[in-house]
Amino acid sequence: MMKYYNSKIISETTIAAIRQRVEATLKNEGFGVLTEIDLQATMKEKLDEDYLPHLILGACSPVYAHKVMRIEPTISTMLPCNVTLRELANGAVEIAIIDPSVAMGAVGNAALKTLAKEVQEKLMNVLNNI
Amino acid sequence: MMKYYNSKIISETTIAAIRQRVEATLKNEGFGVLTEIDLQATMKEKLDEDYLPHLILGACSPVYAHKVMRIEPTISTMLPCNVTLRELANGAVEIAIIDPSVAMGAVGNAALKTLAKEVQEKLMNVLNNI
Repeated sequence: MMKYYNSKIISETTIAAIRQRVEATLKNEGFGVLTEIDLQATMKEKLDEDYLPHLILGACSPVYAHKVMRIEPTISTMLPCNVTLRELANGAVEIAIIDPSVAMGAVGNAALKTLAKEVQEKLMNVLNNI
Repeated sequence: MMKYYNSKIISETTIAAIRQRVEATLKNEGFGVLTEIDLQATMKEKLDEDYLPHLILGACSPVYAHKVMRIEPTISTMLPCNVTLRELANGAVEIAIIDPSVAMGAVGNAALKTLAKEVQEKLMNVLNNI
């Protein structure tokens, strides 16, 4: 089983209550949120399926995005780094952050791998500081 | 070198000219575009770096997204599937589409791998039909 993300569960909260903290913590590490997908709303609208609140936030460090795209422009197919917020049935929220060093590390470019590991360290700081 | 995307170059065009065709072809295969990042604008604004036009479109098949999330909810950290449109210096546009069967196939779940391969076939249809 490949570990492609890291996660943390925060009990007795909601996405609405912790989202601002997540975004502020991302900002402290240099990441802005460029995209947002509301899975609950999307699944209701497209399939009439009921989901608990579940967001996909696309977080991007412009500095690192620029560095990796100078090495390989098509690496943009792997950007941004997703941070998901998912409400669980027990009243907790799971925060999961993709580990970019897994996918980017497998591309086979040493410079890209080094940068992806640096990004991953920053994303772990985010997770630890939320 | 891992092949994590498939691509096609269309000569003598612009993103503005082909974008609608890309979105229509995605729609024919069941994908809607849920997110969009304008890398040229983002890099100019955040870093004052000059890029040629370069878009990241986040394409999602709600049917498949629902199927994979029922197997593993945290797979949302890998959604949506990115389709990038990048203008090249020679007046062409490169269309690159992530291969979800590479990353999702490595997660280690057979059912997930089968679904990711089906999605990948649909994305290859998109690339071939643009």
